[in-house]
Amino acid sequence: MGEKVRVCEVGPRDGLQMAEAIMPTEVKIEWIRSLVAAGLHEIEVGSFVPPKLIPQMADTGEVVRASRDIAGLTIVTLAPNLKGAQRAHESGADVVIIPVSVSEGHSRANTNKGSLQQVEEVRAIVEWVKAQERPMKVDAGCATAFGCSIEGAVPQERVVMVAAALAQAGVDGVVLADTVGYGNPAQVRAVIRAVHQEIGPVLNRLHLHDTMGLGLANALAGLEEGIRCFDSALAGLGGCPFAPGASGNIVTEDLVFMLESMGFETGIDLDGLFRAREVLKRGLPGAALLGNVNKAGIPRTYRQAA
Amino acid sequence: MGEKVRVCEVGPRDGLQMAEAIMPTEVKIEWIRSLVAAGLHEIEVGSFVPPKLIPQMADTGEVVRASRDIAGLTIVTLAPNLKGAQRAHESGADVVIIPVSVSEGHSRANTNKGSLQQVEEVRAIVEWVKAQERPMKVDAGCATAFGCSIEGAVPQERVVMVAAALAQAGVDGVVLADTVGYGNPAQVRAVIRAVHQEIGPVLNRLHLHDTMGLGLANALAGLEEGIRCFDSALAGLGGCPFAPGASGNIVTEDLVFMLESMGFETGIDLDGLFRAREVLKRGLPGAALLGNVNKAGIPRTYRQAA
Repeated sequence: MGEKVRVCEVGPRDGLQMAEAIMPTEVKIEWIRSLVAAGLHEIEVGSFVPPKLIPQMADTGEVVRASRDIAGLTIVTLAPNLKGAQRAHESGADVVIIPVSVSEGHSRANTNKGSLQQVEEVRAIVEWVKAQERPMKVDAGCATAFGCSIEGAVPQERVVMVAAALAQAGVDGVVLADTVGYGNPAQVRAVIRAVHQEIGPVLNRLHLHDTMGLGLANALAGLEEGIRCFDSALAGLGGCPFAPGASGNIVTEDLVFMLESMGFETGIDLDGLFRAREVLKRGLPGAALLGNVNKAGIPRTYRQAA
Repeated sequence: MGEKVRVCEVGPRDGLQMAEAIMPTEVKIEWIRSLVAAGLHEIEVGSFVPPKLIPQMADTGEVVRASRDIAGLTIVTLAPNLKGAQRAHESGADVVIIPVSVSEGHSRANTNKGSLQQVEEVRAIVEWVKAQERPMKVDAGCATAFGCSIEGAVPQERVVMVAAALAQAGVDGVVLADTVGYGNPAQVRAVIRAVHQEIGPVLNRLHLHDTMGLGLANALAGLEEGIRCFDSALAGLGGCPFAPGASGNIVTEDLVFMLESMGFETGIDLDGLFRAREVLKRGLPGAALLGNVNKAGIPRTYRQAA
C-alpha cells in the first residue's frame, strides 16, 4: 500500500466560476455525485460571493444542501468574508476557504482590502465559527503566492509573512495558491520550505494552475516537499482571467494518473473520472475540456486504484 | 549566470514523421532556420529511413545538406541501421542517433531484430564511422525505456543491460527515450540513477513524450537527477502511434519556459520560438499545435534569455 495523497476537486467552484455558461443546479449536483462515485471525497462545490459578481455561483447554498445527502463527501466552499462564511456554515459546509491575496495589489483589486486587513477578516471568521455549535473547518488560501498578474513577482518573505499571520489567526490549514500559474518548480520548492519552516504542517495544500504547462511539474515539486493534498479540476476546467483561452486548474485525471503511477494511493478511479467528464460535457456544452490521459487512454502499465 | 541546459529540437524529425501532410523541403529549411534564429543550436532535422515507410523523411539528405549552411547548428539525424548511418555521414550530419528498443517486442516489431542484435548494428556503425576521415558522433536512443505499448512494463534491469551494452559498443552518448509516454517521475528518477551507476555520463540526454501530460514533470525528475540535455518539439508536434489524437513530444516553448524560470540558461528566446511556430503553422496547415506559454503569453515575471 502506497502513501495516501488527497486530491480536492475544485471544478464545481474554480472551474465553473470562469465558464461562460451557467451550469444548472441539478446538473451540478449530478456532476458532484459522479465525482464522488469516482472516489473524490473532498469537493469544492461553490463559493458564497455576490451573485452579481459571479452569477455561476448563485446557487451555492442549494448545492451545499443537496451535497449533504452524498455519503462520504467533505463539502468545501469558498467565501471572501464573514458574511459568506456565515452562509457557508448555515448551509452545512464542512470546510470554508477564505482567499487572502499575498500580493497587495491583487488583494485590493479583488477585495478592496490589503492582505493584512483580509487576515483580520479571517481572524473574525475563525472566532465566529468557534462560537457556533456545529464545527466547520476554516482554511485560508494564499492567492498569488507564486506571482501576480498585477504586481509581477511576489517576494517569498511576503508569502511567509501572510502565511504566518494566518496561522496565528487560528486557521485549520493554509493553502498556497498559484492563482495565475506563474510558478516554477524551483520556486514552489523554495516557498514551501520557507512557509513550512514558519508554520509547519498548518501548510497542508497546494492549489496549482496549468497556465504555462508547468502544473504537474509544480505538483511534483510540492509532493517532494511533503505536500499530500492537491486541488485540481476535472478536465482542467477554469482558465485564467488575465489570459483568455489559457489553461486553467491542473487536470484531475492527469494528476491522479501521475500520483498513482508513482505509487501513491488516491483512492480515485480513472474510469470513474471519465464518466464524470461525460456529465460535465453535457452540463457545460462547448466548454474546452482539457487533459491527456483521456485522449491517450489508460496504458496497460497503469495500476488501477483499488 | 545559471547552469546551462541544452535543448535539442526534434520537431523536424519526430514531429514531422507523424504528421499527416508532408512538409515541403524548402519550408522545412525555412523552419529550421527560424528555430536556429530562436537560439536552438541542436536540431534533429530528419531520419534516414526507407521513404516507403516514412515518406515525410524522404528529403532528409537534402535537408541536411541545406542545413550545413546554417551557422552554429549541430545537425542531428536518426538512422536505424548502418546503411542509414552511412547516408547520414555522406550528407554531412554532425550526429547520428541509432534507436535501440529496450523492449524486445517493440524492437522486433520496428526493426525485425532483437534489442541485442540492434546493439550489434550500433557497434558496426561505431566502427564504420571511426574508419572515416570526417568525424560524426554516434548516439544511441534507448526506445521504450519507460514502458512499451506492446509489452507493457519494461524492467529497469533491462534498460541498464541495453544501456551498458551500448556504452560498451562505443557510442558517444546514450539517450533514454519515453517513446510512448508511459513514464512517471519516480520511475524516471530510478531508471536514470540505475543507468548512471552503470555507464556514468555516457547517459546524457532524455527524450520525453507528453502522452499522459507528465512530460515536464518527468523532465523535472531528469533535471534533478543531473540530466542537462532534453529533446523537445516546437508546439509539441508528434503524437503517439498507438493513441491517435494523443499529445506528442514535450513542448519546446513550455520546456524552455520552465528551465529559464528555474534559473537555467538555455540561450533560447521565447519570442523567437513563437515566430518559428508561425513558420510551422504555414508549412503544416491543420496540424494540432500544442503548448501553453503561447496561449497564455509570456508573464511579466519571466526573465528573458539574453
